[in-house]
Amino acid sequence: MNVLLFDESDEIAPGRVRVAGRRLRHVREILRAKTGDELAVGKLGDRLGRGRIARLDEAALELEVTLSRDPPPPHGAALAVALPRPPSLRKVLQQATALGVKRFVFFQSARVEKSYWQSSALRPDALREQLLLGLEQAGDTRVPEVGFARGFRRFVAETLPALAEGAPILAAHPGRAPAALGAAARCALVVGPEGGFLDDELADLERAGALAVGLGPRVLRVETAVVALLSRVAG
Amino acid sequence: MNVLLFDESDEIAPGRVRVAGRRLRHVREILRAKTGDELAVGKLGDRLGRGRIARLDEAALELEVTLSRDPPPPHGAALAVALPRPPSLRKVLQQATALGVKRFVFFQSARVEKSYWQSSALRPDALREQLLLGLEQAGDTRVPEVGFARGFRRFVAETLPALAEGAPILAAHPGRAPAALGAAARCALVVGPEGGFLDDELADLERAGALAVGLGPRVLRVETAVVALLSRVAG
Repeated sequence: MNVLLFDESDEIAPGRVRVAGRRLRHVREILRAKTGDELAVGKLGDRLGRGRIARLDEAALELEVTLSRDPPPPHGAALAVALPRPPSLRKVLQQATALGVKRFVFFQSARVEKSYWQSSALRPDALREQLLLGLEQAGDTRVPEVGFARGFRRFVAETLPALAEGAPILAAHPGRAPAALGAAARCALVVGPEGGFLDDELADLERAGALAVGLGPRVLRVETAVVALLSRVAG
Repeated sequence: MNVLLFDESDEIAPGRVRVAGRRLRHVREILRAKTGDELAVGKLGDRLGRGRIARLDEAALELEVTLSRDPPPPHGAALAVALPRPPSLRKVLQQATALGVKRFVFFQSARVEKSYWQSSALRPDALREQLLLGLEQAGDTRVPEVGFARGFRRFVAETLPALAEGAPILAAHPGRAPAALGAAARCALVVGPEGGFLDDELADLERAGALAVGLGPRVLRVETAVVALLSRVAG
């Protein structure tokens, strides 16, 4: 946790914040802070700043906060990922959020196991936990949006164009030539299942305007491929 | 496991391989393969190919193997990382190996907790497990070398020049300008602790010829920063 994030529900008075639970434990047990210390703080959806510890005990942490600067600019890529198994889903959410992604869509494709859609990792509170961990890591305040598309054709026809908003669409597919990705400051990145898309699926994506790109001869885990792609298109 | 890796000790006759343990369980329980099926295989330090299952039961898996192609080319970067906490160490080893890194050095710096050097994750068998997982993921056979440097000055004076072999040295440090990294096909990447190097340490690195580069305004986990850097210097 490189920044302690709070929202309106934590504000007990103007410029005064009270938190408990995980954030309190972190400040007491990991940071071992004490009254009078200053912490990096941020208000969700708002600005970053400093918080002076006014109270710290077993029950609560209270901070006097001053917000003074904007969060870092978002990443230029929106991210669509074939729903991975739950541990990968958590890593994708957390790491891509840390890298500044603000819009996620997870979609069904033929090589996605149907059982993944039943995972508790898809519950709103579980998703939000990973997003907040990514924001706390990177020092950001803007919570990403996460959407789901449970049919592949509808994903290609409706969800993906809405995600791309007219920007280039790049679809990662094993065996395709690595593209010079650096040019695209804004884009939508589509990452398939580890085994790749079916031929039909890739054809659908290409008809929808996607450029299929490879990441070299190595098969990467979804979470590694996502970080690699985001790093290469970063403006 | 995208390729089943074996070594000389697994060869029971020319072109015949017998394995047990983790690899046997994976083939039986995850792949649910049966006699006559073919698997992607590779011989450590040697070539990749196919293996036909000649025997598969509770005790052993036997394969008739044919090796036919070289592993993918290695990544051009050698990687020096301030020793991270054990979960990050495992991720760095596994993911960077999957990306093709062949030489690692983990070093001490002021912001590295001394206790990390006592971790069981540093035992040779634990290191090798992560390296093999990375190779199995990526379809590679060449096992990376892993070294350690427990003094920072000696790391800068001796270990780092030996690692770089005359290639450019890039040191990731928060707050420095992101560099155009793509130019360096061969290089040594130095990744500090998450809090960054001390000023003195950075000055030592720069005197040794390192160029300090940033990864933007976001604070990244070590394992995320490593993948991001490796993706940006990939030739």
